[in-house]
Order: sequence, then C-alpha cells, then structure tokens
Amino acid sequence: MPTSRRIVLASRPQGWVAPDNFRLETVETPPLEDGELLVRNEWLSLDPYMRGRMNEGRSYMQPQALGETMGGGTAGTVVESRHPRFQPGDRVTGYLGWQEYAVSDGSGVHVVDAERVPLSAYLGAVGMPGVTAWYGLHKIIGPKPGETVVVSAAAGAVGSVVGQLARLAGCRAVGIAGGADKCAFVTDELLFDACIDYKSQDVNKALKVAAPNGIDGYFENVCGEIMDAVLPRMNAFGRIALCGMISGYNGEPTPMAQPALILVQRLKVQGFIVSEHPGLWPPALRELGALVASGRLKYRESMAEGLENAPAAFVGLMQGRNFGKQLVRLV
Amino acid sequence: MPTSRRIVLASRPQGWVAPDNFRLETVETPPLEDGELLVRNEWLSLDPYMRGRMNEGRSYMQPQALGETMGGGTAGTVVESRHPRFQPGDRVTGYLGWQEYAVSDGSGVHVVDAERVPLSAYLGAVGMPGVTAWYGLHKIIGPKPGETVVVSAAAGAVGSVVGQLARLAGCRAVGIAGGADKCAFVTDELLFDACIDYKSQDVNKALKVAAPNGIDGYFENVCGEIMDAVLPRMNAFGRIALCGMISGYNGEPTPMAQPALILVQRLKVQGFIVSEHPGLWPPALRELGALVASGRLKYRESMAEGLENAPAAFVGLMQGRNFGKQLVRLV
Repeated sequence: MPTSRRIVLASRPQGWVAPDNFRLETVETPPLEDGELLVRNEWLSLDPYMRGRMNEGRSYMQPQALGETMGGGTAGTVVESRHPRFQPGDRVTGYLGWQEYAVSDGSGVHVVDAERVPLSAYLGAVGMPGVTAWYGLHKIIGPKPGETVVVSAAAGAVGSVVGQLARLAGCRAVGIAGGADKCAFVTDELLFDACIDYKSQDVNKALKVAAPNGIDGYFENVCGEIMDAVLPRMNAFGRIALCGMISGYNGEPTPMAQPALILVQRLKVQGFIVSEHPGLWPPALRELGALVASGRLKYRESMAEGLENAPAAFVGLMQGRNFGKQLVRLV
Repeated sequence: MPTSRRIVLASRPQGWVAPDNFRLETVETPPLEDGELLVRNEWLSLDPYMRGRMNEGRSYMQPQALGETMGGGTAGTVVESRHPRFQPGDRVTGYLGWQEYAVSDGSGVHVVDAERVPLSAYLGAVGMPGVTAWYGLHKIIGPKPGETVVVSAAAGAVGSVVGQLARLAGCRAVGIAGGADKCAFVTDELLFDACIDYKSQDVNKALKVAAPNGIDGYFENVCGEIMDAVLPRMNAFGRIALCGMISGYNGEPTPMAQPALILVQRLKVQGFIVSEHPGLWPPALRELGALVASGRLKYRESMAEGLENAPAAFVGLMQGRNFGKQLVRLV
C-alpha cells in the first residue's frame, strides 16, 4: 500500500487562521478489508465552512478534531477496490479529506462522469457549492422574472453560480466582489448585469445605480458590513438566503445594524445548510451538470499545487485572495 | 349634527412621543350625503404601530399627516345612515380615528355582534391584534405540538393571544413581559407555561429554565435587547415572526447582536404586516370570536376615560405602562 501524506489540524485558530494551525504528516496506508476501496485524491476542495469547523463550540457541524485529517470534499480515482460498487479506474468524488490517499467504505463516494465535465467541477459548480447556490436561490429566494437578485462574494464558487442561475431565471443579477479584476470577471465572463467592488465603492450607494428597481432577492455569503449596506435597498417582500458568514468566522462580532428593516419591508431572512437537503441534490446536480456541459454555466478555479500548499491556500481563501473555486491539485 | 372633539397630530416626536405632540380640537360634524353614515365612536384602539406612523420617512404605512385626525381603529354605534348597508343602532368597527363622531362612506366599517363578545373585544383579541397574533403564529411560525413558542410583550394585546393560541396548538408557551404583575397575569390568567420578567431577570438565563428544550418559535413584538437574549436559545430550524419593534420606534438604533445565529441554527426570520393579508382575516376572526365567546381565549384591557386622555394613554403604551389591550372609552 502507498505511503500517504495528510494534513491534520494542529491547533485551533484564535482569530484569523494561520499556516501553523496545520501540520503535515506522512502515514502508511493500511491494507484494504472487504467492502473498502482505496482512492488517490487528485483534487481537494477548500471551502469557507471549514473555518467554522476549526472552532470549538456550537455550530451546525461537528468541530474538526485536533490531530485528525482535515475533513473536506475530494475528487480522485479508485486505485484498488474490495467494494462491489467500485472498480479501479473509477473517477469519484467524496469527503475524503486533506490527504493523498484515502481508504473508504464507500459512504458518500460517488462515481462521476469526468468526460462530460472536468473532474474538478464536481467540487465546484457541479458539486456542493453549485447545489448551495441552487438551493438558496430556488428554495429560499424563489426568483421571479424581472426581479433583481444580488449576491455577495460573487466571484466565488457559490456566488458565481447564484448570479448565473438568477439570469437564467430571468432576473437582473448584481454581484458584490472585492477588486476590479473580480468585478470584471463577474460582468464580462459570467455576464452578471453589474458588479460592485466593495473595496473601492460605497456598496449602498453603488446599489442605487446597479439595482435601480431595488433588490428582491439577496444571497448572502459574507454578513457584516456588506449585509448592512444591502438591507436598506431591499424591496418589500424581499427574500434573503443566508448561506455564509465569512466575515464572522474569525470571531469578530458581526451585528446587523438595522434588523427593523426586516419588519418594515416584510422580508424573509433564512439560513440554510445544503447538506441537510439531500433529496434535492440529484435534481440540482443534473441541472448544473447539463448547464456546465453545454457551456451555459461558467466557473473559474484557483489552484494551489501540492498537498503541502493546502494550508496557505486555505488562509488565502479566508482572506479573499482566491478567485473562483479554491482547489488544491495533488496529481 | 353633533359637535365633535378630535385629536390631531400637532408635531412629529423627536424620540419619545409626548402629550404635546397632539392637539385637541372641536369641530362641527357636516351633514350626511347619500352613501354616508354617522358613527358615535365608543372605543378607540391605541396600538404601537401608530408611533411608527408619526415619523416621516420610509415605513410600511403612509405617515400620519400633521394637523389631521389621528388614524386608528374604533368601535361604536351608527347614529344616522344614508348608506344602504347600515341602520341606526348597528354596532360597528372601523378605522375612524381619534374622534367622538365620524362621518364615513362605509369603507372598512363592519357591523359586529356585540352580544356574542363585548364590542371592545373587536379592537383586541377579535380584531387587528388578534389577527396579528393568529397570522404570525400560524402562517410564519407554524407551531407543531410539543414545540416551545416564546412571545415578547406577552401581556399585551397581541402577545397574550399568541401564547394562548400556541397552547391550543399543543405547544409550551413562554412569555416575556415587564413586571411581576404582568408575569403573574400571563401565567395565572392566560395559563402560559412560564413568563419571564425582563425588568428583574436575565432573559437569556431565565429562558434556559423556562424553555428547557430550546425555542422553536419566537413571536417578536419588541426587537432590541430582548431579541438578542432570545436568539441564542433558538433551536435548529426555528421560526421567528417579526411583528413589532417597539424598542425602535423612538429612533434609537436597535442592532441585532448575533445575526450569524440565523445561519448557524438555520432560522427563518420573517417580518409581516397583518393588513396585507386581508383574505385571512375572516377565517382568523371566526376562530378568535369563537374562542373568546366560549371563554377559551382570555384578554385584558387597559382603559383610559375620555378622548382628552388618549394622548397620555398612548404615551403610556409606548412606555409599557399598559396592561393588556390599551383602549380609550369615549361613552
């Protein structure tokens, strides 16, 4: 069996996550037992929710255990199988963590068609981030043609899908992103109707121009100041899907300045965790896969090279340095 | 035609409302034209939303005009009618404002059965406050048997109905009110399972005892600090009906300290205005009327005597000095 490198959580971050919260280890892969398979991970998915898991205390997921392999979505190839559902050579996605090789009993491992869409897309637009966008947009916001949908972190893995799906639903799509290059990508490549650069623009004022008829749906990936700038522009009966709170993962308080607007404008604000709606994954993934395969849903990836660079890439993701879906390429 | 006294808005409050924001006037009642009726108002309803209307600027209702009769719900008797739907002697509710006599074209005026339930109840438990409670509880919170529902301003016109309806739905009902006497009323008369006195107790800690299984539904009449104390006790998939923001009507900022909990606990927070759901009033009022008539829904009234005392009673309402539905008796 191959020797494998893995990254474990060495310590819980106090505030911002840093590379020394992680530790690289080399381990021997145990031999397979009946019902197990060995996967060579080719791609790791880095996602903001991981920062939440690095904290102790109440959240919607079990905390990441200290000294254990960092959890996370993966895509790779079956090397060896004593499991009836898998053959060597199968391309698979799973939740096999930050390691080069993984032994699995097959739970959560799915064979995918890497000819139709690239394998890495199953960690992004045709994976958890894509389904997150699909669920929040269709099941919470419920966009109607002619409405305006705004999404923060618009150049990211989730936000980029939200805006494109909103346009497919006949809506005006407005992104909020950090930097002129990200905004150019959002409008020129993803074809959002507008994008606001929160680093150089007053978001509230810019929304008056970018969303001249007000905002009917808001997909929130960030919370904090961005949300406070968006809320006063919401139309009556607007819907806000609360998907992420990147700005709050580091422990700073992130109050909402004017919750009274939820009442004044009769808004619905709803948080969700996409993993709790497994029944909707198959139809969502079918739709997303068809859109990516036909070129109607575009995405961009930020790639780090090699397992040893995963910690630095994750730190960069939490600081907004990624541009599109953040991946680590292992092969 | 009778001489009538009325109260007009003399000036817009800066911060807390005060009696000198109002002015008492005496006016002559004009003769009726065809299609009109004359009503002697016997009861005025005082409600917190009126404070919002006294401000200028964006809200869900037109601002109250300066120099015009204060708007508000009323109950009284038809004195004279040139309207085919009404006869002298009919007991009616309407939105005829802070005045002793009102000429109306019949819009929004409804004949009620004041034998079955007392006329004043049509301004409370069998009126707008009752329907507000009914809508927020049944259409936003959607209580399931065995769940825990918490309501703020629990001794008030809306809150008292919320908790009783929650118990009828098989829920544990927990109130939050200001003062030992109000709390005693909430538990001993309204038969809530528990009531927390926010003036003498730490609401968050007290909820640990009063809602030992956490909170599934929260009916918010106040916002501000009370909401911040309740939010950390919400269970996953909890629902919050945002009905009022008494604490914010006076212009103080009322931030929400931890909106991230909406995501962490996958909550739904929804604001509503009961007047926007006219189709649900008839079934709600039928249910509420039957409950009051049969003694299963109890209520309490605070009465001011005489039109000239309406401003002071309204100031008291905004300071929480009322105990139950605040009315002004004119006859």
